[in-house]
Amino acid sequence: MTILKEMMNAVGVQVNSSNSVDVQQNLVDFQTEKPVATGHDLLVKIMAVSVNPIDVAVRKQVSKSSPQPKILGWDALGTVESVGSDVSLFQPGDRVFYAGDYRRAGSDAAYQLVDERLVGHAPQKLTVPQAAAMPLTALTAWEALFEKLALSPKNNEPGQTILIINGAGGVGSIAIQLAKMAGLRVIATASRPETKAWVKKMGADLILNHRQSLPQQLRATGQQDVDYILGLNDIDGHWKEMAELIKPNGRIVSITDNQHPLDLGLLKPKSVTFAWEWMYTKSFYQLPTMITQHNTLEKISQLLDQGILHSTLRQSLEPLNAKVLQQAHKMIESNHTIGKIVICN
Amino acid sequence: MTILKEMMNAVGVQVNSSNSVDVQQNLVDFQTEKPVATGHDLLVKIMAVSVNPIDVAVRKQVSKSSPQPKILGWDALGTVESVGSDVSLFQPGDRVFYAGDYRRAGSDAAYQLVDERLVGHAPQKLTVPQAAAMPLTALTAWEALFEKLALSPKNNEPGQTILIINGAGGVGSIAIQLAKMAGLRVIATASRPETKAWVKKMGADLILNHRQSLPQQLRATGQQDVDYILGLNDIDGHWKEMAELIKPNGRIVSITDNQHPLDLGLLKPKSVTFAWEWMYTKSFYQLPTMITQHNTLEKISQLLDQGILHSTLRQSLEPLNAKVLQQAHKMIESNHTIGKIVICN
Repeated sequence: MTILKEMMNAVGVQVNSSNSVDVQQNLVDFQTEKPVATGHDLLVKIMAVSVNPIDVAVRKQVSKSSPQPKILGWDALGTVESVGSDVSLFQPGDRVFYAGDYRRAGSDAAYQLVDERLVGHAPQKLTVPQAAAMPLTALTAWEALFEKLALSPKNNEPGQTILIINGAGGVGSIAIQLAKMAGLRVIATASRPETKAWVKKMGADLILNHRQSLPQQLRATGQQDVDYILGLNDIDGHWKEMAELIKPNGRIVSITDNQHPLDLGLLKPKSVTFAWEWMYTKSFYQLPTMITQHNTLEKISQLLDQGILHSTLRQSLEPLNAKVLQQAHKMIESNHTIGKIVICN
Repeated sequence: MTILKEMMNAVGVQVNSSNSVDVQQNLVDFQTEKPVATGHDLLVKIMAVSVNPIDVAVRKQVSKSSPQPKILGWDALGTVESVGSDVSLFQPGDRVFYAGDYRRAGSDAAYQLVDERLVGHAPQKLTVPQAAAMPLTALTAWEALFEKLALSPKNNEPGQTILIINGAGGVGSIAIQLAKMAGLRVIATASRPETKAWVKKMGADLILNHRQSLPQQLRATGQQDVDYILGLNDIDGHWKEMAELIKPNGRIVSITDNQHPLDLGLLKPKSVTFAWEWMYTKSFYQLPTMITQHNTLEKISQLLDQGILHSTLRQSLEPLNAKVLQQAHKMIESNHTIGKIVICN
């Protein structure tokens, strides 16, 4: 007996001898087998994906020897089509959103498998692209603020300040909102008129220009230092300023890799704590704490439906094919993205 | 009317043209004015001091231009002789212990001023040298474990492990005890027969040799990684091992400066948190949290009296004069100290 395998459309990276990994043209439309959900997996019919810097990073790592195109995209909204036998949190028909596990096949496809512990029910009062914009960045900002900086979502000592370096990007846009929700005074950086307007819209109390001296600008307002710093861009370039601006016993969290060695000793006299935040650590190491991403996305979903948080969607493209995805990658690589870019399927 | 000022004996550092700052012979006996308590200060009659690496570090920084010898020593036990007008926590006659504020005159003298917010009541069931051995190292270990690593003194998730690099020194000896009290499994490093025996006596569950590969030794026991690392020696030499051995989302705290740039990026994939602990940060910056050192010393005192913690005293010398202090500095500079050295006045 022959079993006919069901096929699906997808976009993937394929590197051949005439292509450098650096060009978006490596992204190609192709057909591949539709996967089947087992264990804790959900099979999700993708309605929209959001594009992030990790997509570009993984695209550039794909090797020429890969037998078939690699599907990118780890930030999605869709409908549960079927579930593995161990699934207990979702059922077919549920609308869900998630970032997932970047080592597995991504969301740039008609269907995707994802572990239920990394998934939340999508908000109901947002449009599809508005909701699809949120999971990866909201998880990153949530973990940075409420796990790494040890802030509480609601009850913090009054009068505390956070400096968010690069407030206008995807993580910055939702981090500003979460920090305001937590009762902090939020200082965000932005350098262009359109990014300044955006971070103000997201709720920043004060905007500094990260192309000029941050200590000078802050001190001109009468404030000497800050309790927390969230670094979202150019940690090398801002390291000395961060060491200068953080309060004694303060906390710094960063999501962006350093390119050069950093002088960690600058943080010693103040006994500063420095934390890395990488949202994929839990799924990469398959930690028991993976379930916290389900819980966090459920909270994010409620807060979006309650209007306490707002979507950071800036631009919505369609349809999800190689040409449109190439365009989205190009925008991400410009390093000038404001808020989030979503592609609807 | 002439007011005759009262004088007192002290030991201080005096650098002259024929002396390098590197020799212990810079420590000299001298007479100086007995200070007077004002504000939040206590005037303490010193009964015993404990010698620490910070004494050597400050000794080496004394410049030739200092008009009179600088009094070192920031770890003491004594009796409150008089109090400033704002003092509310102590009264004359109280037996106290403290580390103090290293920018002020130290404890290597007949009398010393110290801010009451940095002082605790001394334990009552310990001998003078046993109690004098404790304040600086206990504060350091307490802040490292319960502030920087965010452990609870009593209620932690069961089954967690801490690796203490260099368990036999002053901080390591009390950190082992505090970590055991907090319910952790404690792996401590030591390299010589006498240091191994000492860390075992302090309560370590497992001893590794820090002159050999720590990952290899740990994994030979069947354990892959640890939840927490407390670095007390050679952070440069152990950095890669720390990055390899820490669990994803784990926490590292260090009290020893790096000598070379450290590759902070090694901690990124695991989203590790790294904290510096310097016990003098609170007094150096005159933080409102200075009062936590009073509270912590009161707790340490009770735990010592209850027999939950034990003194880490290894050797007691006397009397407190230049010759004996020179000997103690030499011992600290050997880098082979086990537990604590105390000098009784």
